[in-house]
Amino acid sequence: MADRLWINARVATMGDDGLGIIERGAVAAEGGRICFVGPQADAPTGARETIDCGGRWITPGLIDCHTHLVYAGTRAAEWRMRLAGARYEEIAAAGGGIVSTVQAVRAASEADLVAASLPRLDAMLADGVTTVEIKSGYGLSLDDELRMLRAAKALAAARPVRVAATFLGAHSVPPEYKGRADEYIALVCDTMIPAVAGLADAVDVYCDTVGFTPAQTERVLVAAKAAGLPVKIHAEQLSDQHGAALAARYGALSADHLEHLGADGIAAMAAAGSVAVLLPGAYYFLRDETKPPVAALVAAGVPLAVATDCNPGTSPLTSLRLAMNMAATLFGLTVEQCWLGVTRHAARALGLNGRVGTLEVGKDCDLAIWSVETLAEVPYHMGMSPLHARVFQGDMLQGNMFQGNG
Amino acid sequence: MADRLWINARVATMGDDGLGIIERGAVAAEGGRICFVGPQADAPTGARETIDCGGRWITPGLIDCHTHLVYAGTRAAEWRMRLAGARYEEIAAAGGGIVSTVQAVRAASEADLVAASLPRLDAMLADGVTTVEIKSGYGLSLDDELRMLRAAKALAAARPVRVAATFLGAHSVPPEYKGRADEYIALVCDTMIPAVAGLADAVDVYCDTVGFTPAQTERVLVAAKAAGLPVKIHAEQLSDQHGAALAARYGALSADHLEHLGADGIAAMAAAGSVAVLLPGAYYFLRDETKPPVAALVAAGVPLAVATDCNPGTSPLTSLRLAMNMAATLFGLTVEQCWLGVTRHAARALGLNGRVGTLEVGKDCDLAIWSVETLAEVPYHMGMSPLHARVFQGDMLQGNMFQGNG
Ligand SMILES: [Zn+2]
Ligand SMILES: [Zn+2]
Repeated sequence: MADRLWINARVATMGDDGLGIIERGAVAAEGGRICFVGPQADAPTGARETIDCGGRWITPGLIDCHTHLVYAGTRAAEWRMRLAGARYEEIAAAGGGIVSTVQAVRAASEADLVAASLPRLDAMLADGVTTVEIKSGYGLSLDDELRMLRAAKALAAARPVRVAATFLGAHSVPPEYKGRADEYIALVCDTMIPAVAGLADAVDVYCDTVGFTPAQTERVLVAAKAAGLPVKIHAEQLSDQHGAALAARYGALSADHLEHLGADGIAAMAAAGSVAVLLPGAYYFLRDETKPPVAALVAAGVPLAVATDCNPGTSPLTSLRLAMNMAATLFGLTVEQCWLGVTRHAARALGLNGRVGTLEVGKDCDLAIWSVETLAEVPYHMGMSPLHARVFQGDMLQGNMFQGNG
Repeated sequence: MADRLWINARVATMGDDGLGIIERGAVAAEGGRICFVGPQADAPTGARETIDCGGRWITPGLIDCHTHLVYAGTRAAEWRMRLAGARYEEIAAAGGGIVSTVQAVRAASEADLVAASLPRLDAMLADGVTTVEIKSGYGLSLDDELRMLRAAKALAAARPVRVAATFLGAHSVPPEYKGRADEYIALVCDTMIPAVAGLADAVDVYCDTVGFTPAQTERVLVAAKAAGLPVKIHAEQLSDQHGAALAARYGALSADHLEHLGADGIAAMAAAGSVAVLLPGAYYFLRDETKPPVAALVAAGVPLAVATDCNPGTSPLTSLRLAMNMAATLFGLTVEQCWLGVTRHAARALGLNGRVGTLEVGKDCDLAIWSVETLAEVPYHMGMSPLHARVFQGDMLQGNMFQGNG
């Protein structure tokens, strides 16, 4: 017998490129999983609780598949300097840049990190997010990276949300390893990756001129595979280092950013089945002018995901709906591509496509219920969230945490 | 004796270009007005209630000086078509465009309009807004325009917020006057403006190739002045019609949009003291590529305001903080310019600078209290609102309506 049955809904399963729309649909959960999704006429009877959705839309809960949500401090002062015309050297001299976040994170306890991150997480949940990926990468020492990963997991205990934790020790060379990037990579590969294997769900690496070289990147990918962890990559954000193609050789779940991705990278990603994760918040905030090759990715059959890249330096964005809006407005995605990018394809970018991302029998019953007439309204509104309720693993949650109504 | 005293705060009065910062400040209210603002050491004693701000920042409540907040329906379906490549004619054939909003508004009762607009207003309040301008302009008949203005005023009764209502009958030629724009302008000037004079606080007109000609615009300006109403203008959004200069001759409070403003318009605005209201949400949403001449406006001494332009067709934006972020990111404003643009200069754009916009003794005690370390954080965060509490006319309100904490 179903625990809970949602009726009188318009359902988008995200099961096909047309979003899998069922006009008069129903969804039922049992033991936290979907036990029925389909036309209401076929729904099971005798559920313990039946919820009338009043004609609202049901989609899978949203998945933010690329964030650096756990951090301490902000970089607002640095942003203010940049707007006032300060150059990189002046900002660095004033203590800005990623080093300032590393220092703040190293000085923060696990509880501090959780407390600092909860308002950001709550903002995401109010947009209908039920799964969020969170990267380490501001600790850059074994203990500090472990503490970041534990804070990420602690957030999943503090709120009804699924957290996928990604180890990003190879985010930046820490100050104490300045000029010794290869030595730092050895620490990442030989010490950190084996130590985080029980805690992290994947390994990521920042391959770019301001990050790590392709050779250093490959060492990280090798170590991750040796530890049994799937890999992801920050690639071709500022220049084409052929990082996406490199990661594809290691079966990367995704390659992310991709503004400067070339034809070789697209072909390699298509062959490997890697997802292209687009991060328009960073493109916008950095006033970038080179857009990722969206049309070529689509033509090659590479799935597109959209994420916030929530981070203090280049994308202080906590709204996945706004990331969808930016993907449409700035990168030219259609509404349908935006929706699949935060559901089906985002799940695949995390290796969670067997569990979430579409509404199918057997998957976790993670839902977002929207007070809208059409699904286009969800990314269309900039600011106001039209979320009516979130459902996490079958449990109906206090709807819109922001507005309480719909 | 003061009714209420806020202590242990960092105060930004917006009284000068450096934001008028008082590091260890206090604000006191009596009878809804500010009776003290200054260093805490000089604050009055014996207030009926004293509130410890815990080191938070106090600014004037934000002022959104250009919105079309009252409307019915959405234009999300039209946006979806546009993203999928549909051309203007196809969208019009499918019932899109401003006509669809006019039809929805004409079919809505005053209560319908209030109910549809309240979630948008609530989102704005959660960003610290205490004054919002709301235009008519989707009714386009006397009764429908009056109903929109009444709905705008009703919102001020429904929530603790000040509403400045602007009559924008000359927004678009209504369908029944197609090809007879001059006749419609006669209706606006001879019938509508005299009828709305007790209800509207100002008159606005949309001067552009898709709106009204300069000659038609001038008729509206003349009629407004004859009715004793101050004027504003939508000018130079899509092309340079010299509307800002025209309106300046009638002492316009503001000229808004201004992407295509030329040197003559800048000089005329400077001479007339008109405020330049920048609307980056529409620039962003329409993928415009011509930016307003910010540097030249500043050089000429024209005050800059920033607003959401909240409307269903070209700026479905309900976050004034995000408008600030866009003004900085897309138009190059500094953090200080963004702040003055939603406080001091926004008040002047509404002719309310004697009453709100800065923290000065005698002005209404409208405050926003922020849980931030620096004022740059307020526009920096995209999504999450760092608002701790709003104060409207001296009354402390349930802080962040969205998060309840700080
Ligand atoms: Zn990232
Ligand atoms: Zn407007």
